[in-house]
Amino acid sequence: MVNQSAIPAPSLRRLPLYYRRLQQAIQDGEDIISSQALGEAAGVPAAQVRKDIGHLGEYGRPGVGYDVPSLTTRLEEFLGLVSEKRALIVGVGNLGRALASYPGFTRYGLHLRAVFDADPAKVGTTVAGLQIQSLSEIGTTIQQERIQMGIVTVPAPYAQEVADILVENGISVIWNFAPTSLVVPDSVLLQSVDLATELATLSHRIVRHRMRQIDPRA
Amino acid sequence: MVNQSAIPAPSLRRLPLYYRRLQQAIQDGEDIISSQALGEAAGVPAAQVRKDIGHLGEYGRPGVGYDVPSLTTRLEEFLGLVSEKRALIVGVGNLGRALASYPGFTRYGLHLRAVFDADPAKVGTTVAGLQIQSLSEIGTTIQQERIQMGIVTVPAPYAQEVADILVENGISVIWNFAPTSLVVPDSVLLQSVDLATELATLSHRIVRHRMRQIDPRA
Repeated sequence: MVNQSAIPAPSLRRLPLYYRRLQQAIQDGEDIISSQALGEAAGVPAAQVRKDIGHLGEYGRPGVGYDVPSLTTRLEEFLGLVSEKRALIVGVGNLGRALASYPGFTRYGLHLRAVFDADPAKVGTTVAGLQIQSLSEIGTTIQQERIQMGIVTVPAPYAQEVADILVENGISVIWNFAPTSLVVPDSVLLQSVDLATELATLSHRIVRHRMRQIDPRA
Repeated sequence: MVNQSAIPAPSLRRLPLYYRRLQQAIQDGEDIISSQALGEAAGVPAAQVRKDIGHLGEYGRPGVGYDVPSLTTRLEEFLGLVSEKRALIVGVGNLGRALASYPGFTRYGLHLRAVFDADPAKVGTTVAGLQIQSLSEIGTTIQQERIQMGIVTVPAPYAQEVADILVENGISVIWNFAPTSLVVPDSVLLQSVDLATELATLSHRIVRHRMRQIDPRA
């Protein structure tokens, strides 16, 4: 039995990239794939690929490579891509609209079942084939559609209030895109995507990158 | 001299969260902030905060806390928030539109100077106060506006072509939102935000979360 808690975050973040490369391999009719080919898709050397995939308890055959169908199945299981996740979006601004229309989600088991907005002018209009609902309907919809996951794309000042409403109505997973820290009970799984944080990380890398062009040892 | 290459990625990703908390402290007129207060903003214990900020060569006074103005200045320097970054966006779909209108960017030194789209129907219309330009104008605009950074929000099949055009025209930093791996020269700094990867990571955490609710040792 593999101890799944042992996988480091950077390794976990590369697995979907390997998975995407494997899907390409399937499309191209390849049965075997090298760790080097997988590494190219994630921008890491072959040795790192073998280490990452080792965390899944899977090993390629030395000098041959990985079996494409079995590694695909293992990744789908490990990443939970086979388990259906029913989701809703709160906040139909540009980002909410972008997420609602994102074609990559169903591939990862995400099914968007409802969208909500506080703006009465938006309620009743359609996005990604779904009618935008008023927040007052959220409890009923979560129950009827058996939704587990809430995607929060409201402006930062409203995000905590929305998270509280989601938690009260039984949502167990929150994917937060509002640039603010949310407080939720321990029983709720919270993952935040913060573009400002991403940008600050990039900004730091730009500074180091410039320094390195002046002094390669920096 | 602090070796900046030594900061681990998770520590780096928390720094903007501390920075945001410091801005709140400034607004509230606080001169001193505890590592615990900073930790709450990032969801980590005080000891981790001290470790993270130690990477910057900054230390709070034990039992007192951090000096808000000086830690703010150090973070701005470390994260490169003071250096202006002139950017363009290629691809004005929902995501490009969301990014163009994102109010948090200027705070991190990002100045959007131009937006481009391949669709003739979009060229000439306005987004975030900028007129959408045709891709044929991209070289001239990059030169005239001295743009260093390109934000790629085109569909995956066009992303590499767009990256090539950006690199040819002297762009040195690419922020890629297309769900695909890009190949760029070593001299170009590439950071990718992949929503599908984020979702796969979340999906794995959901599976583990469910397992833990059945067996707390998982």
